[in-house]
Amino acid sequence: MNTESNAQENVAAMEKRVRDSFDRQGLMHHLGATISHVEPGLVHIRMPFRQELTQQHGFFHAGGTSAIADSAGGYAGLTLFPPDSSVLTVEFKMNLVAPARGEYLEAVGKVARFGRTLTICQMEVYGVTGEERVLVALGQQTLMCMHGKSDGGPKA
Amino acid sequence: MNTESNAQENVAAMEKRVRDSFDRQGLMHHLGATISHVEPGLVHIRMPFRQELTQQHGFFHAGGTSAIADSAGGYAGLTLFPPDSSVLTVEFKMNLVAPARGEYLEAVGKVARFGRTLTICQMEVYGVTGEERVLVALGQQTLMCMHGKSDGGPKA
Amino acid sequence: MNTESNAQENVAAMEKRVRDSFDRQGLMHHLGATISHVEPGLVHIRMPFRQELTQQHGFFHAGGTSAIADSAGGYAGLTLFPPDSSVLTVEFKMNLVAPARGEYLEAVGKVARFGRTLTICQMEVYGVTGEERVLVALGQQTLMCMHGKSDGGPKA
Amino acid sequence: MNTESNAQENVAAMEKRVRDSFDRQGLMHHLGATISHVEPGLVHIRMPFRQELTQQHGFFHAGGTSAIADSAGGYAGLTLFPPDSSVLTVEFKMNLVAPARGEYLEAVGKVARFGRTLTICQMEVYGVTGEERVLVALGQQTLMCMHGKSDGGPKA
Repeated sequence: MNTESNAQENVAAMEKRVRDSFDRQGLMHHLGATISHVEPGLVHIRMPFRQELTQQHGFFHAGGTSAIADSAGGYAGLTLFPPDSSVLTVEFKMNLVAPARGEYLEAVGKVARFGRTLTICQMEVYGVTGEERVLVALGQQTLMCMHGKSDGGPKA
Repeated sequence: MNTESNAQENVAAMEKRVRDSFDRQGLMHHLGATISHVEPGLVHIRMPFRQELTQQHGFFHAGGTSAIADSAGGYAGLTLFPPDSSVLTVEFKMNLVAPARGEYLEAVGKVARFGRTLTICQMEVYGVTGEERVLVALGQQTLMCMHGKSDGGPKA
Repeated sequence: MNTESNAQENVAAMEKRVRDSFDRQGLMHHLGATISHVEPGLVHIRMPFRQELTQQHGFFHAGGTSAIADSAGGYAGLTLFPPDSSVLTVEFKMNLVAPARGEYLEAVGKVARFGRTLTICQMEVYGVTGEERVLVALGQQTLMCMHGKSDGGPKA
Repeated sequence: MNTESNAQENVAAMEKRVRDSFDRQGLMHHLGATISHVEPGLVHIRMPFRQELTQQHGFFHAGGTSAIADSAGGYAGLTLFPPDSSVLTVEFKMNLVAPARGEYLEAVGKVARFGRTLTICQMEVYGVTGEERVLVALGQQTLMCMHGKSDGGPKA
């Protein structure tokens, strides 16, 4: 087996690790959020509009917007972490730059700087309606890699 | 009617304004969160543990923790805003300082610096189990007061 | 005079407005910082290494790194603000992602989302030695536009 | 020698460790900043007004305000770290809540949550003129303890 297919296998294993961990996040399920894209250093999460996700003016609540941004950044980091490790959010900061409305929100988490212990991500959240895609939030996040503690096992 | 009773009426009206707005936040209801304390410049929000609120290790997800912190800070600000105004979160930053576990989380939002346009709050979130109360998150938030746009009416 | 030359004049006037304001920042002069690039929505600031800029391990101090990042973001915002306005930093957040060393630091401030009242910028700071350019800090900033208060006059 | 005098010796050694490290920060000297108070988990830094510290409107520049806040928080952390360790700022966030003016600024750094690897601080900066003391900035910071790497020796 050549290197390229090994790499492909690793990407598949990495994606499975990320999706398995995501599936164990009760909150993401409760918010109706799903992973829409995974690649090394980049994860997208979508969350369709529902009344259960609103703030007092009927837009998406900043808390839900931030929840999917935090998960998108965290899993973007996890894609680059070793298999026997786990991810923790140390801190994050979000600017809510426009009313969060649309058929769904899409959070994009990207690794901006990978490190053995700490990894820094940037997050963008878009409100999407048909073809229209409006930036509604922008964030920055610090992750910690917990080595030797799997994030992917059923009892993690 | 003397000034003191006027002030008491105003506090009651302010609390009603805050609770009415909170009741219109679909997300707070969906997360099972309730306001446990309101006074000028200070709001507490509680969220009992449920599987629907977890991250992959079974603790409260940072997104839910941040959602109640954001609402606690936002409503702490709204207590000091004029009746015909509305509150928007400009940005917030959260440090997740310990695993968020307990029978419930309690978010405490406090106004640190009130301003006509921008108000700054600090947030603490505690994990509470019986008598034990552990700090799990610490945040700072910038709010904007939208003058002339009521936060409390049914059509806000 | 056609539109294009008007636009060129405006860019020149904008750049003058930014450079005049920068020249009145005693701190930038004291730190040895200079503007190395200005275009609409984008400003670069350089700061050569000196012993006077160090922290206890001999690298650039995070305070100096943050100072040029804050100014780069602020002036990136000012490039888009109307001539009779002024810029204030509401808040900013910096991640120090690597030891800040090199012949000089270069801070890059970019407008991520322009708004009439609030504008959001992203900042990157690089440590530069010869051809090598290493990301040392990453930030996000909220600016306020003070309309009707010039940032460019000698008595501002 | 009893425990109490041991503790007193330790506090003296800790304060010396902090002041020695501070004295090696070229930037603090260049800004005219000095440590005005040290106790476990709490450090104050003062910086008198000078033209060299200003932004374009003649107030203290946010960069200098943030520099002393960052150092105050960092050294508040270092007071609690073991003698053979060093402190790094992972990230910090500052809200500039009022024009930074006065005879001097005083930054107060406090440990909010100590941890073996990561420690969280809160910072306040006041503008002081005579008896008047006005809050001008408020921040939150994440520190990393580098174990086994002294912050206090001349070659650190």
